[in-house]
Amino acid sequence: MTFGHQQRFKSPRLTNRSDFPLMTNFIHRRRFTIEWGHCDPAGIVFNSRFFEYFDWGTWSLFEAALGVKPHELGAVYGIMGIPLVDAGARFIAPARFGDVVELSSQVSEFRRSSFDVAHQLLVDGALAVEGKETRVWAARDVADPEKIKAQPIPPDVLARFAA
Amino acid sequence: MTFGHQQRFKSPRLTNRSDFPLMTNFIHRRRFTIEWGHCDPAGIVFNSRFFEYFDWGTWSLFEAALGVKPHELGAVYGIMGIPLVDAGARFIAPARFGDVVELSSQVSEFRRSSFDVAHQLLVDGALAVEGKETRVWAARDVADPEKIKAQPIPPDVLARFAA
Amino acid sequence: MTFGHQQRFKSPRLTNRSDFPLMTNFIHRRRFTIEWGHCDPAGIVFNSRFFEYFDWGTWSLFEAALGVKPHELGAVYGIMGIPLVDAGARFIAPARFGDVVELSSQVSEFRRSSFDVAHQLLVDGALAVEGKETRVWAARDVADPEKIKAQPIPPDVLARFAA
Amino acid sequence: MTFGHQQRFKSPRLTNRSDFPLMTNFIHRRRFTIEWGHCDPAGIVFNSRFFEYFDWGTWSLFEAALGVKPHELGAVYGIMGIPLVDAGARFIAPARFGDVVELSSQVSEFRRSSFDVAHQLLVDGALAVEGKETRVWAARDVADPEKIKAQPIPPDVLARFAA
Repeated sequence: MTFGHQQRFKSPRLTNRSDFPLMTNFIHRRRFTIEWGHCDPAGIVFNSRFFEYFDWGTWSLFEAALGVKPHELGAVYGIMGIPLVDAGARFIAPARFGDVVELSSQVSEFRRSSFDVAHQLLVDGALAVEGKETRVWAARDVADPEKIKAQPIPPDVLARFAA
Repeated sequence: MTFGHQQRFKSPRLTNRSDFPLMTNFIHRRRFTIEWGHCDPAGIVFNSRFFEYFDWGTWSLFEAALGVKPHELGAVYGIMGIPLVDAGARFIAPARFGDVVELSSQVSEFRRSSFDVAHQLLVDGALAVEGKETRVWAARDVADPEKIKAQPIPPDVLARFAA
Repeated sequence: MTFGHQQRFKSPRLTNRSDFPLMTNFIHRRRFTIEWGHCDPAGIVFNSRFFEYFDWGTWSLFEAALGVKPHELGAVYGIMGIPLVDAGARFIAPARFGDVVELSSQVSEFRRSSFDVAHQLLVDGALAVEGKETRVWAARDVADPEKIKAQPIPPDVLARFAA
Repeated sequence: MTFGHQQRFKSPRLTNRSDFPLMTNFIHRRRFTIEWGHCDPAGIVFNSRFFEYFDWGTWSLFEAALGVKPHELGAVYGIMGIPLVDAGARFIAPARFGDVVELSSQVSEFRRSSFDVAHQLLVDGALAVEGKETRVWAARDVADPEKIKAQPIPPDVLARFAA
């Protein structure tokens, strides 16, 4: 795979450490229906399912921004993945079986080797759940593959989100 | 809600108990992508997830056939739901993170108050998993709401699937 | 069910709004083994599962503190439940298939009608995941059962945790 | 790891292909409590969760019979795992939040390179769900590690279950 878009990446701002944190405006939206098996005896989505949705959102966002299939992300960028180091959610209104929801996901901040993804889940156009994930751009340590090390996020990746 | 299509239902065959089992040819197809969180350390979809998919498929199938939102099925037909009494799957080939799969679902047989749903999950057009669910058309017992009783499936419902 | 322990509750501090927030020192510990189906293709527990564990921990904690079975909590206290309004986790080290983990759960703060639960998941005695839930002591609105209203947490409940 | 019990394995019946299928009488029992997040809007355990329980049961059974930690099974026996090729369940009575259940798991039949596990889930001593899994004793193909090949189940393993 070649990155034909690399030549588009001319800005010096992204090669400078002082340019971080870097905001982005690339938003990915995904619509889906709340399933029966996602809901609990109160008839509303069980909390852990929202964290599954956020994970779906992040992978979809990266696929949309980078043009790389999620399962090929590791091979394309030489990383083991983008593991989560922090996650949180605020539950404002319930989502119920049969609700058609919209999940919007955006990298709210890129740092040198980590980034935050902000998620919003809308039910009938109203904000129901807000989520935030912090993830690391991580590779296996060459000396000890059991260890995982944060890596600088490639300028190419940053440029794709800034576009 | 009114069922304007009830007048279409003229065939005597469905009012006769001897007409069961009744086959149907209404197939619902649903495409989706295998998510990271659906997969296990072997890198393939964890078995219980397929039973979630089958559940998704059955609700989608009923929505498509009946024109009733899944969460309104109970209210529209005066039932508590379509609980599962038997489920099975045959795992032929793995499905992996990022695979775009097609799930086709069909009522393979209607009986008086129960029915079978056959599911097929295709990966790259090849059959990966076959599933079967047996469900009951069930209402709460009027005398004892803790108890659930199988009810005759309304001819209207049968007609929709036979259409 | 009677609350024989209510007579133990003499302190005026808990009936006074100014006494909040209230710390507690009642810790519940629960040991379990990480299951295959809890882990993702990276071979570690998938993030949403930790939020399931936290939910387990909170129910176990309340059962231990109150002596009331989780599924009877609503009936005993006249509430619809203890819905989550905020959840978060910090992932410090991975947990893997077969790891025997210890989850310790504690109400870190009681407020008038809400409370925080702090969770710590230890793997081999070392902190692997920290979690926090904020929950509400909630009842259905008498005027509109579709609505849920926060209720003052009964002094009896507070006393049980302070014990 | 050495298998000190191998010398106990003297019976010629297990080395003979004609000795299959082989029944076993080693039963593993596991008690646990139904969690809130395992239940659906009908207030009962969602069907896919039972297949998670069966998976728990099978790993526990093998650990108990073989004295090998589940996550070490592959390394100890030179296999990639015991993948599922077929699973089924019959739902006889519901299990609800807070129910303390007992899951008993047993290899109902060993064949040359595959086996069936029978599961029974009891609620208050009464059979609620019956499950059956068919699994394969599988290794990666040396020529093509992407392929998985069924392997003869070692006599040592069979002997452990027959004991």
